[in-house]
Amino acid sequence: LSSIKENALVWDVGSTKEKLCAMISEHPKRNQFLATHPIAGKENSGPEYAIEGMFADKIQIICESYKTRDDLLEWSKSIFISLGMRLRFMEAKENDSSMAYVSHLSHISSFMLAKTVLETKKINNILDLAGSGFESTVRLAKSSPDMWAPIFQQNRENVIETLDVYIHNLLNFKQYLIDKDYQSLHEQMKTTNTLTNILNRINKNK
Amino acid sequence: LSSIKENALVWDVGSTKEKLCAMISEHPKRNQFLATHPIAGKENSGPEYAIEGMFADKIQIICESYKTRDDLLEWSKSIFISLGMRLRFMEAKENDSSMAYVSHLSHISSFMLAKTVLETKKINNILDLAGSGFESTVRLAKSSPDMWAPIFQQNRENVIETLDVYIHNLLNFKQYLIDKDYQSLHEQMKTTNTLTNILNRINKNK
Repeated sequence: LSSIKENALVWDVGSTKEKLCAMISEHPKRNQFLATHPIAGKENSGPEYAIEGMFADKIQIICESYKTRDDLLEWSKSIFISLGMRLRFMEAKENDSSMAYVSHLSHISSFMLAKTVLETKKINNILDLAGSGFESTVRLAKSSPDMWAPIFQQNRENVIETLDVYIHNLLNFKQYLIDKDYQSLHEQMKTTNTLTNILNRINKNK
Repeated sequence: LSSIKENALVWDVGSTKEKLCAMISEHPKRNQFLATHPIAGKENSGPEYAIEGMFADKIQIICESYKTRDDLLEWSKSIFISLGMRLRFMEAKENDSSMAYVSHLSHISSFMLAKTVLETKKINNILDLAGSGFESTVRLAKSSPDMWAPIFQQNRENVIETLDVYIHNLLNFKQYLIDKDYQSLHEQMKTTNTLTNILNRINKNK
């Protein structure tokens, strides 16, 4: 940022925003910086996995847009819109706390599911038996540790909070099993089905 | 089973086998029963979600095949093969303990992930921000509680065991975050990547 010319702009496209935005808040060229978070991409890393049209109809989160110079902001928006992105404006704090729930926790649950299965002694016999459901839940465990370790580091407090809730829910589910309380087990899954109904509705409205 | 004719056969197609097979082990018509577990299907339930060719190239687990009358077993196998299924023979106990890892735990992790996100106060604001990774990990939370509560009940001991390992791994991951031990976090994710490499290799060999 310090070395760019007067009409240049730096885009940040990472998953977390709060620490980075705080770090550069007093930078003399803060208004030549735009904090963005495109919700797009796959678990694979590297140029060989490039996808044409990847940003079409995808969300682009823009944080603290009012801190970016008007002409540079407008120029950026016109590019995002020409890619077919849907813009959402929010504070850095909101991006980070939201992502802990709808992105970072998913990755941890997937990584730890993969780890749990890897640790069984009969790993070579059971993976052949895995169906598409298992592959769907461990898909994110293919993600790059080089990319994700720093994300968890940057969003440490929020991620610990979501992990606490998640682990609490798992312990609760296990307790129902121990108590043979299958009625509560059923009710809890029934309630949870509503999330997927909401997701289906959102996808239809897109 | 008690009411079927001499040349009739009962197929079981459920996810768990141990308790059912034990229950009918002394039945006078035990040899007119075949315990099968097709690893196929989606999270949706009901005839409106029927998929043509659903069993092609999918695994069909057959348990205790030696307890089924030869002609009925051969007849069943010819049908499964004509559907394009790949047959795997094993004991009921092995089906149940394997499924706890590669199927039942995936469903619980997905249900509890959905529950965790549902419980946040800002649920309506954040779901719109979810990407395809989140949808992949919560896909199984659409599954029917009517189908899954009895599966968890039947496979209670194995599921509790896998949940214990999974929760332990999550607590461990959380501890790395608390300790700011990002090196260990990175190494753990790196190791976990190997599972997905194994899965990719299996898929290629199919």
